[in-house]
Amino acid sequence: MSQTALETLIDALHRLPGVGVKSAQRMAFHLLQHDRQAAAELARALDGALAAVRHCARCYTFTEGEICPVCSDDARDARLLCVVETPADQAALERTGSYHGLYYVLMGRMSPLDGVALSDLGSQGLVQRALDGVVEEVILATSFTAEGEATAHVLAQGLKSRGLKVTRLARGVPAGSELEYVDLSTIAHALNDRR
Amino acid sequence: MSQTALETLIDALHRLPGVGVKSAQRMAFHLLQHDRQAAAELARALDGALAAVRHCARCYTFTEGEICPVCSDDARDARLLCVVETPADQAALERTGSYHGLYYVLMGRMSPLDGVALSDLGSQGLVQRALDGVVEEVILATSFTAEGEATAHVLAQGLKSRGLKVTRLARGVPAGSELEYVDLSTIAHALNDRR
Repeated sequence: MSQTALETLIDALHRLPGVGVKSAQRMAFHLLQHDRQAAAELARALDGALAAVRHCARCYTFTEGEICPVCSDDARDARLLCVVETPADQAALERTGSYHGLYYVLMGRMSPLDGVALSDLGSQGLVQRALDGVVEEVILATSFTAEGEATAHVLAQGLKSRGLKVTRLARGVPAGSELEYVDLSTIAHALNDRR
Repeated sequence: MSQTALETLIDALHRLPGVGVKSAQRMAFHLLQHDRQAAAELARALDGALAAVRHCARCYTFTEGEICPVCSDDARDARLLCVVETPADQAALERTGSYHGLYYVLMGRMSPLDGVALSDLGSQGLVQRALDGVVEEVILATSFTAEGEATAHVLAQGLKSRGLKVTRLARGVPAGSELEYVDLSTIAHALNDRR
């Protein structure tokens, strides 16, 4: 039997990350029964994003022009290049208000178990970008997970061998936490990196 | 500043039930970075479902024709009419293989707290449908939650006053459960309705 339009929709929603079959059914029901306008808007938003969103030629993040607004901003310190995994990580750093350099967005991290090699990320572009003659320091701000650490390690090797200064975000006790509840590995790092 | 195509997409995904801002960001990132084909297919599936999916003229469930396949099936017992809340509930009953009558799908349940009155559901159509002269028994299979019970109660009053036989799914101990772990209200009902 060929699929109905409803089954096709449920399958398509089920392909979204983190959405199981039951959630996909509930979403399809909600959209068709209670919010057809949202369904139409989502379809238009998907088509619009597919047509407009591309990678920044300098930092590889999502953008709609050739160069993203951050890379185009002359007020930023072009001597600092901060490497992050995703646009969401970049946004978190931006919200701190304490970083004024530029970024490079890998759009992922190495994950051998999922078959994601470093070469699948924007890492080739990173080396080229970092060697523009203006960048003096590359700050590795990948996640402090096994995969993020491995990514940082491999990137650091490649960048240092080309004579660049490479630093990593500090590990330590999170602001607002009581030592008693902080995991031991974090405390050990904080002790080690005390200043 | 006007919204970028990416922000518009995140907002549209955020409107899906059960999807928070972070999940919407992760979905948008995944679709644009790793699975543009899925994004295109979802857009087409949404448009396709919006164009094709309508309500069955007899049982009010989602269908693509005038009458849904179940209502069109002459082999089913037209004297039994089972009232369910959603197509998913109907599908669960169908999977049991032990019901051969017809259905009426309310497409929701009364929920005064959310401002959903009985008249917002397909309840008018239900009375009309149940009085077709063929239906002999209406089986209320709404959820056994406060809202589902209230819906069943109000529907039962309306249908009984028109001379129809109205029954409710049995409450009791679920198959495979040990009494020790079953909630007290369920055990009390099972004791009361013992046979």
